[in-house]
Amino acid sequence: MGQLDVVRGKAAIGQSGGPTAVINQSLVGVVEGLRMGLCASGHVTKVLGMRHGVRGLVKDDFVDLTDMHQDRLDALALTPSAGLGSTRDKPDAAYCERILEGCRRNDIRYYFYVGGNDSSDTCRIVSEMAQATGYDLRCFHVPKTVDNDLKENDHTPGFPSAARFVAMACMADFMDNISLPGIKINVVMGRHAGFLTAASALARRRDRAFDEAPSASTDGPQLIYCPEVPFDMDRFVADVDAIYRVKGRCHIVVSEGISDAQGKPIGATLIKNAQVDAHGNVQLSGSGALGDQLGDFLKEKLTPAGGKPPRVRADTFGYVQRCWPDSSVIDRIEARRSGRFAAQLALQGHRDGSVAIKRTGSGSAAWLGDKGEAYASEYARVELSAIAAKTRHMPPEFLHGHNNVSRRFVEYCLPLVGELPGFERL
Amino acid sequence: MGQLDVVRGKAAIGQSGGPTAVINQSLVGVVEGLRMGLCASGHVTKVLGMRHGVRGLVKDDFVDLTDMHQDRLDALALTPSAGLGSTRDKPDAAYCERILEGCRRNDIRYYFYVGGNDSSDTCRIVSEMAQATGYDLRCFHVPKTVDNDLKENDHTPGFPSAARFVAMACMADFMDNISLPGIKINVVMGRHAGFLTAASALARRRDRAFDEAPSASTDGPQLIYCPEVPFDMDRFVADVDAIYRVKGRCHIVVSEGISDAQGKPIGATLIKNAQVDAHGNVQLSGSGALGDQLGDFLKEKLTPAGGKPPRVRADTFGYVQRCWPDSSVIDRIEARRSGRFAAQLALQGHRDGSVAIKRTGSGSAAWLGDKGEAYASEYARVELSAIAAKTRHMPPEFLHGHNNVSRRFVEYCLPLVGELPGFERL
Repeated sequence: MGQLDVVRGKAAIGQSGGPTAVINQSLVGVVEGLRMGLCASGHVTKVLGMRHGVRGLVKDDFVDLTDMHQDRLDALALTPSAGLGSTRDKPDAAYCERILEGCRRNDIRYYFYVGGNDSSDTCRIVSEMAQATGYDLRCFHVPKTVDNDLKENDHTPGFPSAARFVAMACMADFMDNISLPGIKINVVMGRHAGFLTAASALARRRDRAFDEAPSASTDGPQLIYCPEVPFDMDRFVADVDAIYRVKGRCHIVVSEGISDAQGKPIGATLIKNAQVDAHGNVQLSGSGALGDQLGDFLKEKLTPAGGKPPRVRADTFGYVQRCWPDSSVIDRIEARRSGRFAAQLALQGHRDGSVAIKRTGSGSAAWLGDKGEAYASEYARVELSAIAAKTRHMPPEFLHGHNNVSRRFVEYCLPLVGELPGFERL
Repeated sequence: MGQLDVVRGKAAIGQSGGPTAVINQSLVGVVEGLRMGLCASGHVTKVLGMRHGVRGLVKDDFVDLTDMHQDRLDALALTPSAGLGSTRDKPDAAYCERILEGCRRNDIRYYFYVGGNDSSDTCRIVSEMAQATGYDLRCFHVPKTVDNDLKENDHTPGFPSAARFVAMACMADFMDNISLPGIKINVVMGRHAGFLTAASALARRRDRAFDEAPSASTDGPQLIYCPEVPFDMDRFVADVDAIYRVKGRCHIVVSEGISDAQGKPIGATLIKNAQVDAHGNVQLSGSGALGDQLGDFLKEKLTPAGGKPPRVRADTFGYVQRCWPDSSVIDRIEARRSGRFAAQLALQGHRDGSVAIKRTGSGSAAWLGDKGEAYASEYARVELSAIAAKTRHMPPEFLHGHNNVSRRFVEYCLPLVGELPGFERL
């Protein structure tokens, strides 16, 4: 796509989908990027925040961010969740038409949307509609998702912070688990992509068992089940039994999205009266049902004849995974810069695009000591259609067997989450 | 009780009950206290850690801590959970006899037990048996519990860190809740005492509504239900409805131990096939059942005739509450000093006792700015029988109405948790 002249008008920014710990960094990054360039040049006449994403745009419900003090922006950037409010609306063609009308009505010429692959798709449709009707509108997507499931990206803002929470929680919970006997199941977010579940492997401080089958001596979580690998209930029981028999305990992490060989979510199989949302999906987050049902299943299968059932506990990490305030430092920086980069794309005269993070330094230094390469990343413009409505999964080389991750995954993930506490064991 | 001569022999230290983020601080504090005094003087010949509390003592399963490097002790102190392993055993008279035999067999003359009111009771029984049989054994209890339910204490080591987690999680989760519409329920630990549930009130950053009924404009959590107040399902629905009707959302915190007017746990009422433990208690932790059932109940009651049910989500904070590694600074210090103080009691020739934390400076400075009084605390010896097998509840002046806490509670709790992040809202 060739570059255009810079157009004069207002900019509108919205946030969409599940919030993260750093989505406000991206919002602030866009505002800063516009101030550096387009506001200074007079091309952007106002910077409007859409309340609850496209809902605010079609209802003219805006927050004026044009002159907001940088101190407030800095504080906002450190605040988890969507400061402007978010929305789960997935606009169809008619809704996109209303979005475009909202832009026309308010003389909005720059449209920025921070979100996942659905948000990118909305950007793409609105951009195409604008072009088709001859309205000069520049549409940019800024990536966000704790699921880490956007194509073209090495990783996605929001994921490193959520991964940090999962790793920290599993580290501490494993120490808790070895204090007392019993089986512990932790359920982690991620309906289709297992990155966040896999991040639990960073909790292993001593016996890491990467690139091999986990054993009773592996540090917790000993068993890691991602949605990319079909989940078999009998194999699950056998896995747990093998560790529980040796140690009297077992530490397990499962993705909320684990599914059987036919692709049917285990949650839907196990949970009686499962709730189904507007898109026909079984409700996975905001419920402890999957963990509880897996726990009941283990109790039933692992109770010796005439004996007592094992002690099984299940925790579902829930929304705190995506909004815990102690975000990853790299995530904060990258989320902010992603927003600024989107504004830069506008300044450079692009009609549309999405921002993708590319890793340029592996970060193996964190893993290998000072001999390795420091972590580094840069930002690239990619076509909206390359991201829109597509899902990235854990590549096979990040998995090991059906219940473990590979060393390559750990090398990939460790630099993103930042320093983790070092625990001492007796 | 008059003071005795210092006796010569080994010291044994154990940890009991649910682990906390700072229970290892207390363990290390005892070791340090013994090193400062009794080891130096030659009275304590060895410092033994009991593996899994009294279980290790009766089986001669010890870790020798006598010469452990201070660097390792420091790292251990910062590690959440019980480094020695814990136990849920509640010794009866016969078990206590075996404990005493274990002490005799190993020439243990100093017995330290870090735990809650049950651990204090074990200390008391063992101490009385030792005296009755003429074996010179000094028994000391070091307080620990996230529930904050020990008598004689202003607060208990472990509580401030768990309260910090609950406050941080609720702050972030409320921001998440206002990003999207819907009702959110968070379930917090505490079977009989509501301190930890009440700590969620620290999450309110702007509209705090202390000493008044919460309203739709109150910051989340808007509704707080402690086990000290009988929980009425119809009143609960009315409370939620009043806020949900105005805002399209509602942010709720309930204790896992909420009970009806007859004292029957709501969990036991709502949950079909509820699991009952060895003590006849319904399993509350390690399950999302209570939150899920409350959510289903709200959905049913708040669905308009012919309309769609509200979006309701429930998270149960789970074990991460008690083991999250970012502990409160004051908690770390006090847990450590409690352990040292117990060792000092031994050095001073006490036969037995428990350590109690007394507040000597209100800490209102944190609340009122620099005009207030700085937080300060000191340690006192109290009789084991004053703590043993007794439960402290939220005093009435810490509660407001049936679904809120008082300003006095916040003044009490805020200095303990340490600095909380300041969030920015648009």
